Amino acid sequence: MLLQLQTWPEVETYLKTSTGIIIPIGSTEQHGPNGLIGTDAICAEVIARGVGEATGALVAPTIGVGMAVHHMAFPGSMTLKPSTLIAVIRDNVLSLAEHGFTRVFFVNGHGGNIATIRAAFYEIYAELRNTKGAAAPDLRCGLVSWWENDAVSRLSKEIFPGVEGSHATPSEVSVTQYAYPDSIKKVPLDPAVAPSGGFHDARDFRRRFPDGRIGSNPGLATPEHGKRFYDAAVTAIAGQYTRFLAEA
Amino acid sequence: MLLQLQTWPEVETYLKTSTGIIIPIGSTEQHGPNGLIGTDAICAEVIARGVGEATGALVAPTIGVGMAVHHMAFPGSMTLKPSTLIAVIRDNVLSLAEHGFTRVFFVNGHGGNIATIRAAFYEIYAELRNTKGAAAPDLRCGLVSWWENDAVSRLSKEIFPGVEGSHATPSEVSVTQYAYPDSIKKVPLDPAVAPSGGFHDARDFRRRFPDGRIGSNPGLATPEHGKRFYDAAVTAIAGQYTRFLAEA
Amino acid sequence: MLLQLQTWPEVETYLKTSTGIIIPIGSTEQHGPNGLIGTDAICAEVIARGVGEATGALVAPTIGVGMAVHHMAFPGSMTLKPSTLIAVIRDNVLSLAEHGFTRVFFVNGHGGNIATIRAAFYEIYAELRNTKGAAAPDLRCGLVSWWENDAVSRLSKEIFPGVEGSHATPSEVSVTQYAYPDSIKKVPLDPAVAPSGGFHDARDFRRRFPDGRIGSNPGLATPEHGKRFYDAAVTAIAGQYTRFLAEA
Amino acid sequence: MLLQLQTWPEVETYLKTSTGIIIPIGSTEQHGPNGLIGTDAICAEVIARGVGEATGALVAPTIGVGMAVHHMAFPGSMTLKPSTLIAVIRDNVLSLAEHGFTRVFFVNGHGGNIATIRAAFYEIYAELRNTKGAAAPDLRCGLVSWWENDAVSRLSKEIFPGVEGSHATPSEVSVTQYAYPDSIKKVPLDPAVAPSGGFHDARDFRRRFPDGRIGSNPGLATPEHGKRFYDAAVTAIAGQYTRFLAEA
Amino acid sequence: MLLQLQTWPEVETYLKTSTGIIIPIGSTEQHGPNGLIGTDAICAEVIARGVGEATGALVAPTIGVGMAVHHMAFPGSMTLKPSTLIAVIRDNVLSLAEHGFTRVFFVNGHGGNIATIRAAFYEIYAELRNTKGAAAPDLRCGLVSWWENDAVSRLSKEIFPGVEGSHATPSEVSVTQYAYPDSIKKVPLDPAVAPSGGFHDARDFRRRFPDGRIGSNPGLATPEHGKRFYDAAVTAIAGQYTRFLAEA
Amino acid sequence: MLLQLQTWPEVETYLKTSTGIIIPIGSTEQHGPNGLIGTDAICAEVIARGVGEATGALVAPTIGVGMAVHHMAFPGSMTLKPSTLIAVIRDNVLSLAEHGFTRVFFVNGHGGNIATIRAAFYEIYAELRNTKGAAAPDLRCGLVSWWENDAVSRLSKEIFPGVEGSHATPSEVSVTQYAYPDSIKKVPLDPAVAPSGGFHDARDFRRRFPDGRIGSNPGLATPEHGKRFYDAAVTAIAGQYTRFLAEA
Repeated sequence: MLLQLQTWPEVETYLKTSTGIIIPIGSTEQHGPNGLIGTDAICAEVIARGVGEATGALVAPTIGVGMAVHHMAFPGSMTLKPSTLIAVIRDNVLSLAEHGFTRVFFVNGHGGNIATIRAAFYEIYAELRNTKGAAAPDLRCGLVSWWENDAVSRLSKEIFPGVEGSHATPSEVSVTQYAYPDSIKKVPLDPAVAPSGGFHDARDFRRRFPDGRIGSNPGLATPEHGKRFYDAAVTAIAGQYTRFLAEA
Repeated sequence: MLLQLQTWPEVETYLKTSTGIIIPIGSTEQHGPNGLIGTDAICAEVIARGVGEATGALVAPTIGVGMAVHHMAFPGSMTLKPSTLIAVIRDNVLSLAEHGFTRVFFVNGHGGNIATIRAAFYEIYAELRNTKGAAAPDLRCGLVSWWENDAVSRLSKEIFPGVEGSHATPSEVSVTQYAYPDSIKKVPLDPAVAPSGGFHDARDFRRRFPDGRIGSNPGLATPEHGKRFYDAAVTAIAGQYTRFLAEA
Repeated sequence: MLLQLQTWPEVETYLKTSTGIIIPIGSTEQHGPNGLIGTDAICAEVIARGVGEATGALVAPTIGVGMAVHHMAFPGSMTLKPSTLIAVIRDNVLSLAEHGFTRVFFVNGHGGNIATIRAAFYEIYAELRNTKGAAAPDLRCGLVSWWENDAVSRLSKEIFPGVEGSHATPSEVSVTQYAYPDSIKKVPLDPAVAPSGGFHDARDFRRRFPDGRIGSNPGLATPEHGKRFYDAAVTAIAGQYTRFLAEA
Repeated sequence: MLLQLQTWPEVETYLKTSTGIIIPIGSTEQHGPNGLIGTDAICAEVIARGVGEATGALVAPTIGVGMAVHHMAFPGSMTLKPSTLIAVIRDNVLSLAEHGFTRVFFVNGHGGNIATIRAAFYEIYAELRNTKGAAAPDLRCGLVSWWENDAVSRLSKEIFPGVEGSHATPSEVSVTQYAYPDSIKKVPLDPAVAPSGGFHDARDFRRRFPDGRIGSNPGLATPEHGKRFYDAAVTAIAGQYTRFLAEA
Repeated sequence: MLLQLQTWPEVETYLKTSTGIIIPIGSTEQHGPNGLIGTDAICAEVIARGVGEATGALVAPTIGVGMAVHHMAFPGSMTLKPSTLIAVIRDNVLSLAEHGFTRVFFVNGHGGNIATIRAAFYEIYAELRNTKGAAAPDLRCGLVSWWENDAVSRLSKEIFPGVEGSHATPSEVSVTQYAYPDSIKKVPLDPAVAPSGGFHDARDFRRRFPDGRIGSNPGLATPEHGKRFYDAAVTAIAGQYTRFLAEA
Repeated sequence: MLLQLQTWPEVETYLKTSTGIIIPIGSTEQHGPNGLIGTDAICAEVIARGVGEATGALVAPTIGVGMAVHHMAFPGSMTLKPSTLIAVIRDNVLSLAEHGFTRVFFVNGHGGNIATIRAAFYEIYAELRNTKGAAAPDLRCGLVSWWENDAVSRLSKEIFPGVEGSHATPSEVSVTQYAYPDSIKKVPLDPAVAPSGGFHDARDFRRRFPDGRIGSNPGLATPEHGKRFYDAAVTAIAGQYTRFLAEA
């Protein structure tokens, strides 16, 4: 159930039986020669929506532009400063909290967002302590990245052994091909497997990884693989969400 | 062309022939008993994408949560504080400017966003003056709201004479019904035409307009009307965008 | 009654019968070859004071520097960033609200301020919701620009038909000549009527409008015309303020 | 010369011979039973204008609301948060610096502003280092409070020996009576001389100093005394401003 | 070499041969019944200083208060909001960068800091891109937490098998006992091994972990163990720092 | 008693008999050819700890990097922007206030911090008024700089007549030599007594005072003198702290 496709009386009714909600959060950044700029937002959105269908949870609008400062040397990448993203997450969560939502569950599509999202949760908790003290609601923020579960990592090892890499991975590209089969890009990758390693800022990233990929061979991506990743992720995260709601 | 469905080399190529880009901006807020919470984001997004198709322009991700503080007394409404939205717009625009985009055109779906968007443009210009001085790029931000053109207002007067109102209007509800025909809500409206008037903060809004509508009868909305509004808006705004790019 | 010319016990007494107050807000920016840099602050201040006399309302200190980023290519122009102006308005209003003022009415002299002022009102309402929730006072902020009423626009059409323009207008220059007759500048204008049109940032403004005026012929300004505008504006706005206080 | 009463070409001409400008900064806060709420803004403004006349310096608009958090327990007091006032001073100074002003001289009317003004100067210098590095202009900010000179303190000891106090002083009240003779308040003071001492926050201030004065007997104020203080301050500060401009 | 114990000419000399510097960052927060509130700051500081001695690196002042919002339900805990800590890290790093330091290496003592530190690095990189563009220095920020290396985790498994836990661990308590042998607290722990698990905000933390420990038995800590951890960490991190400097 | 060397139950016990705490605040900035970069932080820290011993007060971690923008033209100097330092002080104080501390006493080692610390106190009071209103705790912040008492200034006049100066003074250098006798720098000073005067920004500071000292001869510093200053300061400030706690 997408929040944007409900009416306010429908949300009022929903809140009588659940105070949980899911927020997809992605990024809009280069994903190599054949990966979509929207890869991270697309993966987060489609998987979050799948989880919403599986669990009956409301799904809020996707935060499509995330923290991608390190990708800015590639055209088309967009980023919020970490401090802006903290403010966005704070406003999203506190808006929902005003209506009585108390369990806000982020489904994330971008590793680079994680630090800032976690910082944002504590910014929110700090503000609630300062303004409400003991009267603050029992508000809880949860975060899962769609690939951080056993099912998905098993699948990655099975299908893309040794070439998953860490950016512009074949698994995430597969999910986007499953979601947007009309936007599959047939582009030769040279070398097939990108170099691996760390990086510092955006210039350093591009210097080390000239086509944008890190350690991956997304040339192996297919929509069929994508469906398997999607199914595995939805099942795993639906379980995580259910446990998040049930937690004492 | 959706930015999220391109690769970075495709964007690099695009920039050789155009430095313009469109950003849809909406809101996630109550739209009365039969209007979708996502009405403003949906209208902005589908119309912006139509303009993108008509003109060959890139369309960046939709800013789905806008400035809706005054709707917060209705469940499901979400809002950014104006200061947060200014930061978001600043980061979106300056990200694009880093790559050489110089004409950033916002297609807006929510009247309540307009003041903050305009403030944001000047925040951006002020920062560029301060940090770059005479070396600042000739960056230009444009803003149109999808209903602010003769074609759409003529249509509104023709189809919904006297009952368009100013919030949860039959024309915007029609556009969402055209876009999401599976999410049409059959809900009786009482009274058929909502009361009109101004308001102050969110509590005052709800006191004056208990079901969330202002002056409108969205019970008259149909997907067919929605298509007419969509077509009219796309044509009008495609012209506005083209003139924006061509401006000396 | 100017707040600055009262004592605190006098304000305490005032609050027993009224919780309304007026804040003039202007700008300090170029107004063409014969318009004063303080035009917008002067118009807002003198008209607000007139309204104060007509209605017995307290008038707070003028916010003299506003949002004028787009005028910064002309010497002497000053500006707050929109985010700074939001903070200023917030602090002004919340200071007054601490004492029990609940109706804060801005009389504005500068079109370029409007977006930021409106954004500021929602910043205030958002903060009050977050910090006070249901215990927030029924605080209402109102905004009128002195020329936005029928009386003034009728007068403009009568006295300056077709040459009012949109910046450095003969009507605002007339009001300043009425207020500061010793500072009337006799300067030839060439062309008599400035070019019209839109603009983007400050450099673009100066390129299009080299002497700073837009569409106007302020060479027609006189102090006598100024008095007529002043009288019309004070009467109209006194009515608006009275209705603002009386509103349910 | 008031900046607000000049045209932009006049400022352009002025800058050919001087890059100095004066900004009056005051406060809008209780000044005891017979002192005006605007005392600090009025003193700063009239004395700064006097200095402007004496030296030919331009005088920018008065910053009328300052840092008066500690006076907020008395009706009518207004305050900016220190962080807001820092932003205001920064924007004022950097606006002027854009046009080539390099010597910005604040004439201050409120002891409570001093810390924040000094902090603001360093905020400005820090930003210029960060954004311009070695290319930063040789921008200098100066600050004098009108009573911080030998002439004024001699006069105070001569006219109000032992009863000057530190808030709502007879000397500042005298200056306002000289400036606004129609607003002299005849109010008995009991006790004649207010208690002395320190204070913490606003509640503590009011508890210790129930009528708002600290250590003073402003019942001795007269407009004639005010003229003497005005003359002494203008002469002293004109010298300080001249030396500020001449400094290597 | 402690920066605070050098003179500025000594730093000028140092910069001729190295542009690297180490910043210890810890936290001031409860560490259970027998752990010091300063545990994380102490560990970071002593180990960073050891690394400084081992490598000849300068060591800047310790950032002693970190991000500990989740510990605030225990007396004595202190925290910066994430947004404040981001600003602190930014100012520290940009100060050093002004002098030509280009490799800034944080030695961290608190898991709860990691997200915010990483966010801060990107805040810095974003600002440098915006203000300096291609002229930005090749500034690199590194982060290691003292326990995140094989040597330390091997030692932990050897000495405290199964009872290391994740907060108020015997290894960190041992390091503080080694550093401050006069401040060893003899306090019975009941149960010996604290419960394990996750938590949400500060109230939730205290509810789940009433004495502040998570999964640990710090009753086993000794100064002798502390020395072994200290030695292992210093050796490991000295290697990491050296590789950080040598990195292409 | 150092807060960092206590456990949380010990702090809980402490709060039963005292709600006062001391925070040392210094700076990390050049102090001339023979003064340590950490001079101000060292002086504040050792004296604050002495006061803690003398009075039984808790001493929180030292804020080691302060407001030193004006020293940034000398290598090794570090600074927080004033706005950052305000945030740091706010977070420190409000953290302690959450636990019931109501008297927070800053012992300061750097004149350049004073303005920003005072601004921070009012930022805190303003926030408490806005968020808690009448329910705000009676929180009081105190500030002393270690040299601002009769005992220390008498000693300075006695030991270093006419050569104390205002930066890199022999008295502060003596205190650091007493605290860190292994870090005494034997460096010839030429001239023995540095020039005196004011300054503007950091470049101007270095131009006027090329070796970093102002008006001082720190060549006369000795650890023995340092001990006398230390003793005098501790005694004087212990009295100030005791009176701060006892104040009605």
